[in-house]
Amino acid sequence: MIELDDTHDPARTSWLASANTPDCDFPLQNLPFGRFMLPQDHAPRLGVAIGDCVLDLAVLGHDAPADMTELLTASAASRRTLRALLCRALTQGSPRQGQYRAALYPLNRVRLLLPCAIENYTDFYAGIHHARAVGSLFRPDAPLLPNYHWVPIAYHGRASSLLPSGSPVKRPLGQVKHAAEDSPQLRPTAKLDFELEVGIIIGRPNDLGSPIPIDEAASHIFGLTLLNDWSARDIQAWEYQPLGPFLAKNFATTLSPWIVTLEALAPFHAPLARPEEAPTLPYLDHDEDRRHGAFEIALEVSLSTARMRQAGETPARITSSHFARAAYWSAAQMVAHHTINGCNLRPGDLLGSGTLSGPTRDQAGSLIELTEGGKTAITLPNGEARRFLEDGDQVIFTGKATKDGFRSIGFGACVGEILPCPQYALPRD
Amino acid sequence: MIELDDTHDPARTSWLASANTPDCDFPLQNLPFGRFMLPQDHAPRLGVAIGDCVLDLAVLGHDAPADMTELLTASAASRRTLRALLCRALTQGSPRQGQYRAALYPLNRVRLLLPCAIENYTDFYAGIHHARAVGSLFRPDAPLLPNYHWVPIAYHGRASSLLPSGSPVKRPLGQVKHAAEDSPQLRPTAKLDFELEVGIIIGRPNDLGSPIPIDEAASHIFGLTLLNDWSARDIQAWEYQPLGPFLAKNFATTLSPWIVTLEALAPFHAPLARPEEAPTLPYLDHDEDRRHGAFEIALEVSLSTARMRQAGETPARITSSHFARAAYWSAAQMVAHHTINGCNLRPGDLLGSGTLSGPTRDQAGSLIELTEGGKTAITLPNGEARRFLEDGDQVIFTGKATKDGFRSIGFGACVGEILPCPQYALPRD
Repeated sequence: MIELDDTHDPARTSWLASANTPDCDFPLQNLPFGRFMLPQDHAPRLGVAIGDCVLDLAVLGHDAPADMTELLTASAASRRTLRALLCRALTQGSPRQGQYRAALYPLNRVRLLLPCAIENYTDFYAGIHHARAVGSLFRPDAPLLPNYHWVPIAYHGRASSLLPSGSPVKRPLGQVKHAAEDSPQLRPTAKLDFELEVGIIIGRPNDLGSPIPIDEAASHIFGLTLLNDWSARDIQAWEYQPLGPFLAKNFATTLSPWIVTLEALAPFHAPLARPEEAPTLPYLDHDEDRRHGAFEIALEVSLSTARMRQAGETPARITSSHFARAAYWSAAQMVAHHTINGCNLRPGDLLGSGTLSGPTRDQAGSLIELTEGGKTAITLPNGEARRFLEDGDQVIFTGKATKDGFRSIGFGACVGEILPCPQYALPRD
Repeated sequence: MIELDDTHDPARTSWLASANTPDCDFPLQNLPFGRFMLPQDHAPRLGVAIGDCVLDLAVLGHDAPADMTELLTASAASRRTLRALLCRALTQGSPRQGQYRAALYPLNRVRLLLPCAIENYTDFYAGIHHARAVGSLFRPDAPLLPNYHWVPIAYHGRASSLLPSGSPVKRPLGQVKHAAEDSPQLRPTAKLDFELEVGIIIGRPNDLGSPIPIDEAASHIFGLTLLNDWSARDIQAWEYQPLGPFLAKNFATTLSPWIVTLEALAPFHAPLARPEEAPTLPYLDHDEDRRHGAFEIALEVSLSTARMRQAGETPARITSSHFARAAYWSAAQMVAHHTINGCNLRPGDLLGSGTLSGPTRDQAGSLIELTEGGKTAITLPNGEARRFLEDGDQVIFTGKATKDGFRSIGFGACVGEILPCPQYALPRD
């Protein structure tokens, strides 16, 4: 585990006032990395979020990383050095204030990109309450399959359709077969859903054929993001046997703009939802990970409908959950499992945690759970009802790592708005 | 469909004698594209296979494509122009013979790479005989699921572990649970298998949110390769529910070195294994594709064991199959299906066909089918028996497009050798 140092000191404040407000996601203790562009730019810049601004890492001059890969693959020591340097320079009273202030851009004036180029995206299924709840809808006789407690279940997602927060999501077309029908039809999905996940960004790679042992796994993780694994439940139900979800998921996956580093998260380690005494194969078992493999991250999902925005109403919170109360497997276990067969992880690769539903229904991380498969609508404060997402709905994820005695740090929002299904002209012979 | 022209004329011969031998994979009529490096190179070169040589595309001077993406995304007209130009220059009596001869390198003196950079890899399941045979082993009660005849089933594979032909493959470790056991153990797979597939390489991309109609799908396909989707059956059986195969497949996937273009394959169109009258949703249905959606490509798998190589014996053919007799879905249907939800395909993306087993057991494209799940060993000419692959086994795929009245064209071999499972030290607490 990464040791605490004076960059985690909650008493430390910045000369940038917006970083010191209590509800700010990006205080001095966070310093998450991302990529952004100014209106005139042709290539991404590397940045660090601080208060309501982004700091252009070009301020580091000769020491600035050439690209995100250099940052992702840096040694633990140089990551620590960079964090300490940025923290000092942004601290109240720093002699570098003038130089650094000139490299700040207001967040609302820049375009935020995916935080890094992502070659491969794997989605895990580590949220045990979600696995049980959704399993009971798809397979009432066997909600949690016998392998669940042994295997960190995962499948490969689609890297090409990963989107930065704020990108719209078009309602997908797909094959849907209603129970009363003999054959499927091509339809816009009527069961569009979100999935509340945490994304794990890989830093240092491993060679093909060389597993990463569990006791080294954390050193291959750069940091965490929020992730919305949009899902079309009706398409999924018809297509997913026997090889898993495909078109039900790969039309879009939205990522929050900042990678919150493991260094920043060091104060927030917590036990997993897996009981410490649960039997685990040795390659997935490590004492420290067993006791502190999760993080104290509170997660929230809010919905803003077109009608709510027209009426000037604020988004309505529809669920809240928590990483540590939901995750049966740790990020380190996901890395150790993913590579045990020799599979190679690349810098910037993304691992989704799986939907992080809490143990009770009001903590569910997807609508299919909140509405019992669409049976029971949820009602929004303005009286609108939702079973699944409608066109114009905006889904907003937020996350906050919180612990007594430490400054809370946030992830920045992961936002997507549903656009209508595009008109589709069938081909002519 | 691409029209035939004089580049398909079987009477045309090359000034390079090796291109004119009857069993040569790379006659003048083929001209497949790939990437290679000379011993002193630091970056890949683009090449075309001809006879026993590779032609460095730098010979085109100012007209040489800057990289494979430029070639992949070229218009149909410019692809046709390039093919005609290369064909003429390599034809007997060409005035460019001297210039082109200077750009030839013997194939056995260069290192062949993956034919293009591949961002995304999707594996389909279009071989209906394989789907039925393997389905009956994993699910005796429901070998072919109800969605099979409607949905071109697919899942996302792993791009990072794609390997060029000739790369060794280490036997993977993984969780395996024997029927008599209460819990799984970490073991080297004892059921290592190959899967005989054709790879489809995407040329022109589509935008996220914009499906490719079936009547335009072929124009987004650059060409075909051979593909070995190595599989660990014991790992697969334990892990694959409910989200599909993961570690059972993603340790390695081997690709043949050359992309045989749709232009070169134009004479070899053939009906699919799907009956013309089978009901199909309109977005997957197109008259031309229904009648000629497959290709006359004969496929063979040979095995060379360590003992055979020691004794100087040639590899033994263990199965032979045929694209058109095996594939229920066409490459165009795979493209139309993959994008119907708006998913974006990128230049160089790879679609695997799925295992192309023929209708009878001796035409099976995997050992699990040839040996009925490992029950009945196959016997090699030297008396060795195989249920699954053993260390030192070399698996060799070849493919040949053949039709009366046309010059046969080949794919080059797709080869991989199994290395022992690496020693793995369990982590200490």
